Amino acid sequence: MILLDGKKTSLKILEEVKKRVAELSRTPHLVVILVGDNVASRIYVNNKKKAAEKVGIKSTIIEFASDITETDLLNKISELNNDNDITGILVQLPLPEHINRSKIISAISPKKDVDGFNPENVGRLAVGMEPYFYPATPQGIIMLLDEYGIKIEGKNAVVIGRSNIVGKPMAQMLLKRNATVTICHSFTQDLDNKIKTADIVVSAVGKKIVRCKMGNKNSVLIDVGIFRDSNGKLTGDIDFDFVSPDCKYITPVPGGVGPMTIASLMYNASKIY
Amino acid sequence: MILLDGKKTSLKILEEVKKRVAELSRTPHLVVILVGDNVASRIYVNNKKKAAEKVGIKSTIIEFASDITETDLLNKISELNNDNDITGILVQLPLPEHINRSKIISAISPKKDVDGFNPENVGRLAVGMEPYFYPATPQGIIMLLDEYGIKIEGKNAVVIGRSNIVGKPMAQMLLKRNATVTICHSFTQDLDNKIKTADIVVSAVGKKIVRCKMGNKNSVLIDVGIFRDSNGKLTGDIDFDFVSPDCKYITPVPGGVGPMTIASLMYNASKIY
Repeated sequence: MILLDGKKTSLKILEEVKKRVAELSRTPHLVVILVGDNVASRIYVNNKKKAAEKVGIKSTIIEFASDITETDLLNKISELNNDNDITGILVQLPLPEHINRSKIISAISPKKDVDGFNPENVGRLAVGMEPYFYPATPQGIIMLLDEYGIKIEGKNAVVIGRSNIVGKPMAQMLLKRNATVTICHSFTQDLDNKIKTADIVVSAVGKKIVRCKMGNKNSVLIDVGIFRDSNGKLTGDIDFDFVSPDCKYITPVPGGVGPMTIASLMYNASKIY
Repeated sequence: MILLDGKKTSLKILEEVKKRVAELSRTPHLVVILVGDNVASRIYVNNKKKAAEKVGIKSTIIEFASDITETDLLNKISELNNDNDITGILVQLPLPEHINRSKIISAISPKKDVDGFNPENVGRLAVGMEPYFYPATPQGIIMLLDEYGIKIEGKNAVVIGRSNIVGKPMAQMLLKRNATVTICHSFTQDLDNKIKTADIVVSAVGKKIVRCKMGNKNSVLIDVGIFRDSNGKLTGDIDFDFVSPDCKYITPVPGGVGPMTIASLMYNASKIY
């Protein structure tokens, strides 16, 4: 069993991004919008800012109180869209209840939408065109697979979870790389059987859901889930101790997909359209 | 084995569309654009016009010579987008080589895009939002399954083919109805095994590709392929004689998905945004 070291790989990618940024004719400028005072969101936003600084990307955090109106937020985005100095815009999720998330994400210019969640980028990915930006988490996972020389073409990939942030774009990206993709979710019957026979499993659920005896000893297991167990310890979707002896590659939690996501986001933020 | 009668079901749906149109405050008006002199395209376009007439939808065919410029075609679409009398716009595919298909389809207003191929409609479907229009063929297949009371939720669905017109939107729509969806294509290994164990198979390849002994006697087989065999006889992707004894439901070719596609398109054309 080989650990897919997301920490190490992310540092390598950040190093590459740093070089790339240094060679650009102008400095990319990422604006991160934070609405309200969600503690976790604030940590994520600060981590993004720190990562950006490390690779030489200028970053600005714009904070709004949780009672900002949708119109005011839309106006701010429109202003940033039209500001040539700003090359990337990211709205940290979740947003307060009274703000329509789809509306906000749709308002970001597709060419500055570093999260890749804007319908135009989603649509481009869905029809097999090149989006301006791929969503960070699935892109980071593909980078990790590539780093370890893991073949995707022709493989049976099982994606567990169908969120717009991970599961769905992951399925699209694996399909683009010519995997045979099965999308599983809460209505899936006989999930264990699907996991057991897969070549590549990507689990993005947030529950300890992968705990079967693997039938395919060459399988690659990617754990996107990250949460605290009843003892307060960080853990993922995959029962690592039980499953890892019977697979070929597996990501640790933490230190797997998490650092790859941020490196992948910085890769996006270094692009200027 | 029960035949899924697309002919009969399509007539029922066309009847419903006709009633719906009669109750509208104004008559929907579909414009079909035909470029060049592809014989098959001309037949399809005429069939669409005839179907529209039957249900009381006004339709206009606009023909252009194959040497029309992309700009002229884009200008025409822009004019139709802005014409309040026009409620639906359809550009018959394929287009001549010198015209960028994506560009043309992207130019159609999402609210008049009765084919559902515009990136905004594709993106909406991809993120689980309601598109203004669903692509006709997969929507027609869902209508057919519903007509026969075939449960989709929780079922294992295998979609063969990943075109933007059938395979990909079919996968999205089955996923939306909570099936576990596997997308297969030319790189898929062990396709027979995937077909055998599926509850629902939708094949959209255009080659005689489904010819294995079904392992699941309750399976539902949907044949989107339609082409002429070496004897000039119309046939589909599924080896009907070999496969049909071991499944529960199967579509005939012709008389299955084909008529449902046109009924589904008329359903779209009856919508006014």
